Amino acid sequence: MKFIANINVMPLKALLDPQGKAVTGSMKNLGLPEIDNVRIGKHITLEVEAASEEVAKAKVNDACTKLLCNQIMESFEFNLTPIK
Amino acid sequence: MKFIANINVMPLKALLDPQGKAVTGSMKNLGLPEIDNVRIGKHITLEVEAASEEVAKAKVNDACTKLLCNQIMESFEFNLTPIK
Repeated sequence: MKFIANINVMPLKALLDPQGKAVTGSMKNLGLPEIDNVRIGKHITLEVEAASEEVAKAKVNDACTKLLCNQIMESFEFNLTPIK
Repeated sequence: MKFIANINVMPLKALLDPQGKAVTGSMKNLGLPEIDNVRIGKHITLEVEAASEEVAKAKVNDACTKLLCNQIMESFEFNLTPIK
């Protein structure tokens, strides 16, 4: 079975997100002062081949902890959707 | 009313995503050959103050087209969640 994983990797709440801070400031200059608290992370989609949803979940979790997410500074969450 | 917007900005399907390609290759080296077709974009969360969901939607759309997303190379989608 094949699954599509949608992964979000975000900077930890406790840490300053300088990119987000810069964008929050730019919003004011663009005439959008109603927008606040911008935080910027990564969105990753990938396909994973696995016998079951549990196996796929374990593999994606592995990929996140080993490569996609630096757990000192970031947290991740994901969901899986089976394809055909 | 305050809303939280969850925005995904992804490279267009038709374009090569070199960062995703590199990560796909690394997955093989990490012992995860089942993972394929990695694409990497941005995940952005922000708070927006607006009178109604329609107004909030318009503002977030504005922010995406003006600043967050380069529509020549990227596409975006978002959803809004009211808070309190």
